[in-house]
Amino acid sequence: MSDEFTFKVLATDGKARRGEISMPRGTVRTPAFMPVGTGGTVKAMYMDQVRGVGADIILGNTYHLMLRPGAERVARLGGLHEFARWPWPILTDSGGFQVMSLSKLRKLNESGVTFRSHIDGAPYEMSPERSIEIQGLLDSDIQMQLDECVALPATEKEIARAMELSLRWAERCKTAFGEQPGRAMFGIVQGGDIPALRERSAGALKDMGLKGYAVGGLAVGEPQAVMLDMLDVTCPVLPQEKPRYLMGVGTPDDIIKSVARGIDMFDCVMPTRAGRHGLAYTRRGKVNLRNARHADDPRPLDEESDCPAARDYSRAYLHHLVKSGEALGSMLLTWNNLAYYQTLMADIRGSIEAGRFVERTGEIAQAWAEGDLPVL
Amino acid sequence: MSDEFTFKVLATDGKARRGEISMPRGTVRTPAFMPVGTGGTVKAMYMDQVRGVGADIILGNTYHLMLRPGAERVARLGGLHEFARWPWPILTDSGGFQVMSLSKLRKLNESGVTFRSHIDGAPYEMSPERSIEIQGLLDSDIQMQLDECVALPATEKEIARAMELSLRWAERCKTAFGEQPGRAMFGIVQGGDIPALRERSAGALKDMGLKGYAVGGLAVGEPQAVMLDMLDVTCPVLPQEKPRYLMGVGTPDDIIKSVARGIDMFDCVMPTRAGRHGLAYTRRGKVNLRNARHADDPRPLDEESDCPAARDYSRAYLHHLVKSGEALGSMLLTWNNLAYYQTLMADIRGSIEAGRFVERTGEIAQAWAEGDLPVL
Repeated sequence: MSDEFTFKVLATDGKARRGEISMPRGTVRTPAFMPVGTGGTVKAMYMDQVRGVGADIILGNTYHLMLRPGAERVARLGGLHEFARWPWPILTDSGGFQVMSLSKLRKLNESGVTFRSHIDGAPYEMSPERSIEIQGLLDSDIQMQLDECVALPATEKEIARAMELSLRWAERCKTAFGEQPGRAMFGIVQGGDIPALRERSAGALKDMGLKGYAVGGLAVGEPQAVMLDMLDVTCPVLPQEKPRYLMGVGTPDDIIKSVARGIDMFDCVMPTRAGRHGLAYTRRGKVNLRNARHADDPRPLDEESDCPAARDYSRAYLHHLVKSGEALGSMLLTWNNLAYYQTLMADIRGSIEAGRFVERTGEIAQAWAEGDLPVL
Repeated sequence: MSDEFTFKVLATDGKARRGEISMPRGTVRTPAFMPVGTGGTVKAMYMDQVRGVGADIILGNTYHLMLRPGAERVARLGGLHEFARWPWPILTDSGGFQVMSLSKLRKLNESGVTFRSHIDGAPYEMSPERSIEIQGLLDSDIQMQLDECVALPATEKEIARAMELSLRWAERCKTAFGEQPGRAMFGIVQGGDIPALRERSAGALKDMGLKGYAVGGLAVGEPQAVMLDMLDVTCPVLPQEKPRYLMGVGTPDDIIKSVARGIDMFDCVMPTRAGRHGLAYTRRGKVNLRNARHADDPRPLDEESDCPAARDYSRAYLHHLVKSGEALGSMLLTWNNLAYYQTLMADIRGSIEAGRFVERTGEIAQAWAEGDLPVL
């Protein structure tokens, strides 16, 4: 831990980096996966389980929290860490992405965006300054600039317009954030699927001297190859000595391939959402517990896992819970999935330290390809 | 624990009894409350939490389990204890009550009942013998006779017919159950709201020399006074040296008043169901977390509770989770409610041992009447 927000690269293997972000609430081992705690809860999980599987940091969604229970209320209650009983680091997004994807009647101009809540239709305004204010009220450790993320495919003109607006908003967020030694505000690289725009965005943000950089506007439906191409052009422009966060990504395969290109941080709803839909991530790939093949199978998901959800419950029982719509099915599969993701990140970190990143991640991918246990 | 199924009354205070049921899988301290684990899971709870709050025994529903995942399947998987990861005692109902309340196209005659599953319409037959067979496949420690429970109000003729049928079915269940030293089969007193029929049923069951006796057909919508009147006429007929189980009851107040009349065991979905609907049972009475009064309240449900759900989470957070429909809201409130019920049972047991049952339960009821904390 540290009084100041710091980042150190401890080891590299090719472009893959093993690092450490320190801040007053704790240290984040990178490459890191941040479980998504949308509305002040990582769905169907107790926070001690989230910590127990190895998460150093979670993500909170500004959009959801500003609508309910409200940022000022969270502040009165002692901030998001106290409210949600997670005393370790929290990263919050800016709210912009969800405003664009979830809210109603939104109108965007230079100053910001107005919209109506998807919950009750109440009107809200969000500017770069208000986004930073809200993230401060939540007491977030790593705050994100407000940006505009256009859906792909889009015209180059539209992508460029949104990217340039996002740069101007980054400057305004930097000013609004000011000097906060123990916290960080990250800029977000935009530019869609156009290499020159990605380079322009990354370079301009680098010149602002921010404490960290995210890559946004990816994992929004484009092929994986496009995402990786954008990382190939973006990461080299970003400063070596700052953490790099790929927003909203992704599958275990996406994560390995992005770490290989120099990404340090990830968040994604996949492990939690999949857990609520009967899907388990395992070292043998994705397992659909709805499938009748599991109905009589006394074997656990993974007898070698440290996670009780993976190790101690039969597939037959998990199948039964999922088919019956029982809450415990979501609870156990979410737990299993977050444990798998954290185990994967620890494995990746260890392989970088050992100079075996390519070899080890090859073995991991091979085990996925070999697939699940044969039917009994 | 004991190789044989045994019951001892350790202390009495008035008609209230403090006892102990021993069997190979564990000891049940009575008066006992059994959390309901309908389909092999106490909804939204990990089994170690159910044990942790003090439950010695849980209830499984034969109807639900026979339809899904199926009794033969549970048997192949090692029985219900192994399947659901609850190695301690389990009581199963006969399935009869849910056949009558949930299934479709049911037809009842002397031999048993045929019906169709409410899940997929598949046809089933249930006889006294098949009910006992299923409960054996589940490896249930305390099994219940198949009975017919008529909805009140009903005519005396109808109540008498169902009660007499239930007596004949009790004999058949006793024969089917045979000699199983480590387990028990309980008979069920029927007779609706008619004292003479209750006496007739209890007396006939007593003459069968069963290992325990349940009182059924109550808590089905009749006033509490009717239920208590039926206990007043039934309990004195039942043998002192056998456990008495009041099925499907009830509120904390129902439990205290039934213990006062000599009941030893209870089960009810109230604490679990209420937990999924934003309602918390506390020593200050029932608290509705949906109420806006809690939105800014940093206080826990009960700062003196040993249960983390009651002690460590703010009402504001619980309110937020409930309003947002988050799984964690159901998880925490179910945990709180089962902890409260078990604390209440421990309190009742201690008060009987101390010869202070009336005084102590008066204090408990007084605290409920004083109500929840004043608004901040």
